[in-house]
Amino acid sequence: MSTSTARLMDGTALARRTVEETAARAAEITRRTGTTPCLATVLVGADPASVTYVKMKQNRCAQAGIRSRHVELPAETTTEELVAAITALSEDPEVHGILLQHPVGPHIDERAAFEAIAPEKDVDGVTMASFAAMGFGLPGFVSCTPGGIMRLLDAYDVELSGKRAVVVGRSAILGKPAGLLLLGRDATVTYCHSRTTDLSAAVREADVLVAAVGKPRFIKGEDIKPGAVVIDAGYNPGNVGDVDFDGAAERASLITPVPGGVGPMTIAVLLAQTVDAAERQLGL
Amino acid sequence: MSTSTARLMDGTALARRTVEETAARAAEITRRTGTTPCLATVLVGADPASVTYVKMKQNRCAQAGIRSRHVELPAETTTEELVAAITALSEDPEVHGILLQHPVGPHIDERAAFEAIAPEKDVDGVTMASFAAMGFGLPGFVSCTPGGIMRLLDAYDVELSGKRAVVVGRSAILGKPAGLLLLGRDATVTYCHSRTTDLSAAVREADVLVAAVGKPRFIKGEDIKPGAVVIDAGYNPGNVGDVDFDGAAERASLITPVPGGVGPMTIAVLLAQTVDAAERQLGL
Repeated sequence: MSTSTARLMDGTALARRTVEETAARAAEITRRTGTTPCLATVLVGADPASVTYVKMKQNRCAQAGIRSRHVELPAETTTEELVAAITALSEDPEVHGILLQHPVGPHIDERAAFEAIAPEKDVDGVTMASFAAMGFGLPGFVSCTPGGIMRLLDAYDVELSGKRAVVVGRSAILGKPAGLLLLGRDATVTYCHSRTTDLSAAVREADVLVAAVGKPRFIKGEDIKPGAVVIDAGYNPGNVGDVDFDGAAERASLITPVPGGVGPMTIAVLLAQTVDAAERQLGL
Repeated sequence: MSTSTARLMDGTALARRTVEETAARAAEITRRTGTTPCLATVLVGADPASVTYVKMKQNRCAQAGIRSRHVELPAETTTEELVAAITALSEDPEVHGILLQHPVGPHIDERAAFEAIAPEKDVDGVTMASFAAMGFGLPGFVSCTPGGIMRLLDAYDVELSGKRAVVVGRSAILGKPAGLLLLGRDATVTYCHSRTTDLSAAVREADVLVAAVGKPRFIKGEDIKPGAVVIDAGYNPGNVGDVDFDGAAERASLITPVPGGVGPMTIAVLLAQTVDAAERQLGL
């Protein structure tokens, strides 16, 4: 490896450590209280990708000693029915965290469904209360992918205070909360998106770049500032991220691979926050 | 006036028009329902500046045909007592909007007090629900100063989509929501603050600059990009804004004066949102 090549940020290894710690905490909760932390997963319809994601989350729960409760609803479920099902989970003392697999069908008011999740069980960080808590630096659950990004940055001792952070993408669960978390850590944060007129100019300013746009190799390697930290939260067909990895790796100091970077951290944060939720609800 | 001098954005005139429209709407509500829109103002202690601000808001309410109900609490009020007082207003059908004059004393949990305001009465835009609604582009009340800034930008037909907007300041009721509102209008938004290392470089990128930092003449005129739109939300002793007005006016295309720019818009938005709230609560 030449000195001009970036160090890889190993999300797989960090996720493994995070899950191991989480599993130890889950076991301790079970031992002390007789209650095992429980994540409820809610799936509407049978979209193959969604089915796969939910299965993967359930498997990881099992590996970490977290129970999962699965609620499967038909594709034609109405907003009212979905809200009722989630409200029941919010009120069920045996359930500590709730994950609504999304996107749900276009006929459903997804925001209404998210808001039926009690904030203290919002381990996926999708409610408006969690968003505001991230914005204000208050206790609460973070969106899992941005939370995973922050853990990666911390694990590699990336200085954030006063640095220019550029977030490409502004979705409610990734770009926007990632920017708020970076701002809370004293970075100077720029949000870019589909309407940004000179993306290259903005990317070139980034000491820390978060790509969260969902377009394969959308960020050009030549736009990466020498020495920058590059976080690629994209995952596109063919195992390709949002950043031109080869070009970026020649200039960056640290970079996440795809796969094996941000991806594994998302589920790790989900599990960790489920155990956090169980601890609080059980008064530990 | 030479061609190199910026046009002034006349907040006093726009606020007057906004209050006139609001007064007409308030009168119509009273005529149709027999109920006059009502803003409750809550003041803790007798800080002279706070007393003055509350009086000013009550006077403006009266001018616009909005009732005001005033709740005055002693300086030693506890968080629990304040929350109880605000909760009573949230539940009172005769009150349509609630304003907690802040800052409150340091012994009070201000966030808890804000959160006692029912979201549908949060006409000052201070709750976490309002913040998240601004972040997600959902219906709700906006923070009044950022809301006033957006109205000024619109009144002067400032194009925002794809433009670089730089917000200096990241408070929960001004900088942060201003950035979210600009992002919702498709600007490329950068947040700067006290830890930003090269503020001049960031300011120089701004097609639209929002200064919300509370430091007299903190933004240098020479850093203003030629043709930029400069919004000065600062108001410092001696009627001085956060921007070096004279220097900035030589380079900007549009600029808000201090006073007479953003300031008058803040109360205008408060009144307009109180009437919005009354309309919704009265089913109009």
